[in-house]
Amino acid sequence: MAPSVPHSSSVPLLTSEANEKYANVNWEELGFSLIPTDYMYMSKCKQGESFSEGEIVPYGDIPISPCAGILNYGQGLFEGLKAYRTEDGRITLFRPDQNAFRMQTGADRLCMTSPSSDQFVQAVKKTVLANKKWVPPPGKGSLYIRPLLIGTGAVLGIASAPEYTFLMYVSPVGNYHTASSGLNLIVDHTYRRAHTGGTGGVKSCTNYSPVVKPLFEAKSSGFSDILFLDAATGRNIEEVSTCNIFITKGNIVSTPPTSGTILPGITRKSISELARDIGYQVQERDVSVEELLEAEEVFCTGTAMVVKAVETVTFHDKKIKYRTGEEALSTKLHLMLTNIQMGIVEDKKSWMVEINGCDE
Amino acid sequence: MAPSVPHSSSVPLLTSEANEKYANVNWEELGFSLIPTDYMYMSKCKQGESFSEGEIVPYGDIPISPCAGILNYGQGLFEGLKAYRTEDGRITLFRPDQNAFRMQTGADRLCMTSPSSDQFVQAVKKTVLANKKWVPPPGKGSLYIRPLLIGTGAVLGIASAPEYTFLMYVSPVGNYHTASSGLNLIVDHTYRRAHTGGTGGVKSCTNYSPVVKPLFEAKSSGFSDILFLDAATGRNIEEVSTCNIFITKGNIVSTPPTSGTILPGITRKSISELARDIGYQVQERDVSVEELLEAEEVFCTGTAMVVKAVETVTFHDKKIKYRTGEEALSTKLHLMLTNIQMGIVEDKKSWMVEINGCDE
Ligand SMILES: Cc1ncc(COP(=O)(O)O)c(C=O)c1O
Ligand SMILES: Cc1ncc(COP(=O)(O)O)c(C=O)c1O
Repeated sequence: MAPSVPHSSSVPLLTSEANEKYANVNWEELGFSLIPTDYMYMSKCKQGESFSEGEIVPYGDIPISPCAGILNYGQGLFEGLKAYRTEDGRITLFRPDQNAFRMQTGADRLCMTSPSSDQFVQAVKKTVLANKKWVPPPGKGSLYIRPLLIGTGAVLGIASAPEYTFLMYVSPVGNYHTASSGLNLIVDHTYRRAHTGGTGGVKSCTNYSPVVKPLFEAKSSGFSDILFLDAATGRNIEEVSTCNIFITKGNIVSTPPTSGTILPGITRKSISELARDIGYQVQERDVSVEELLEAEEVFCTGTAMVVKAVETVTFHDKKIKYRTGEEALSTKLHLMLTNIQMGIVEDKKSWMVEINGCDE
Repeated sequence: MAPSVPHSSSVPLLTSEANEKYANVNWEELGFSLIPTDYMYMSKCKQGESFSEGEIVPYGDIPISPCAGILNYGQGLFEGLKAYRTEDGRITLFRPDQNAFRMQTGADRLCMTSPSSDQFVQAVKKTVLANKKWVPPPGKGSLYIRPLLIGTGAVLGIASAPEYTFLMYVSPVGNYHTASSGLNLIVDHTYRRAHTGGTGGVKSCTNYSPVVKPLFEAKSSGFSDILFLDAATGRNIEEVSTCNIFITKGNIVSTPPTSGTILPGITRKSISELARDIGYQVQERDVSVEELLEAEEVFCTGTAMVVKAVETVTFHDKKIKYRTGEEALSTKLHLMLTNIQMGIVEDKKSWMVEINGCDE
């Protein structure tokens, strides 16, 4: 199904640039809140069957059964990735196969049928193409893509829903990095995010509403975000509400392992690789609070922020300050990754996927 | 707002009995799956405002933003309670104020606005009245009521949704107790349900989809349900996927405490009171697996099943058998509670709330 984008058959097809038009958005003021766009992607599948090709439909409310698995039992996963507009006019994606894979892992945990990797990536491409004019100009931000896989079938007892919906919408977002200085995190002593034998290792919707309250409390106290400790011992650091965490000391970069309680971030994985490329030793292992307090540098990674330095961590009544700025490893890694994402340096790792046109 | 039920102004208003008609349901074959009825209740509220009186509307799909808090971040709570038709033709509810209160506690944890207790109970009454003909005949089952409080406003970053929906639908369900003999539980060694600092103590949708997989696995191996251990130590029992658990030894009845990782069941609370009334000592405290294995009797409580004996518990390769049947305390407690619920004995505790008519 061809997306109903500017290149309709009634418009003479010139080059994609000639047809290209930007949506009426103030690109200078992009943040991270929803700007509804023209189209979204929808596909449904019954339990025990597979997803077939979905459709691009106008963006808007969807009808859902009050008895749907997602509304009653939280049977839902989401993903988050970005489309970039490069200086030479291409539109690209960053490692969408990794999001596809993560959705599959999550679908297995929540007993849902998942789209195949190929279906996932094709759906992302279609959705971006249909909303091409919402991809910000180079340097102004990116198009955030939000795939959802939700149980939409009606189910009364606790069980997997009889129908799933794979849906995707987008919103232009700004560059998080430039928006503020380093993060000021607070270590939470009351709330925990995830436990072994739970769903912390997948991008399940169930991991997020429980975080709204601690996050709100942290922000009300002037912090940027929360650093969660592990639920089992309360001694090791896990992750921040929507990003992974790294600490550095000398040549060693350490980050908590993906053993089921933290999200295996795609940025985390990519940054680990880049850090190794420039000679750092990257260790995935339990990181205690003590080590955190003695680190030279702390930074977070995630699709929204890419890489972001942590300026301070507050633990009980201690407030630790870390290295940030030009000399920081996080600054270097941020540049390395965004240069790849924006097509400024050669993509030797084949991380970027180009969206060529609407017959993609 | 009057529900659009058989008593419409064009029909001569006789007694409520004279207008009463049963829906076309095979009352002998009721289970616990959704039978859609005529009407549901809907009310919306913006963040920072309060719920006003809702509406009875035809049962059916609701329109929802793809960016809604419930679809993306699991911002949702549910409740479950029942309406009973007594032998003398009244329709009653069991302790609906308790469900109202539990929803308020949950709304606080998930940063949502909750309806007041009064609004909650009125909404339940309206919804039941509108669906009166779906309340099964005495002894054949009950009308299960499912209130939902969900974040329906669009939200892109992790935060509370800007709009909440309070919704309620119903389904006639059968008597769980008569449907099968005692429960055969398996103690789960892989999955955990909840952790301290999480949402295990509220009826958040986020506690349920993570349980679908272990429950499915247990059922596939021939068990009725799963018994979860605590996430912190794995040494104490917590609860079953949708019910609380009690063990007995001599005159002592023990049940895990409601300290944030198990749901404070309304049946649990009521059964504790009834057990005390007949001379048992009820202890709310940590209950270890060892004690479970040495108990004389084990039983579960919940709205769906009321009280149900556990016939066996499987722990690793041990399978323990417990007392069930006529002599069991659970049988006695089940009768005591259902006699109150069905209006067979006097309701000395004022637990039952009568629904008098449609001008309620
Ligand atoms: C809890 C959590 N941790 C980490 C991340 C970072 O993952 P990624 O780098 O794939 O965006 C995210 C979200 O994106 C998240 O929600
Ligand atoms: C996890 C869980 N525990 C216990 C219960 C029992 O609570 P109640 O007796 O209020 O129905 C329920 C549900 O009803 C539940 O979902």
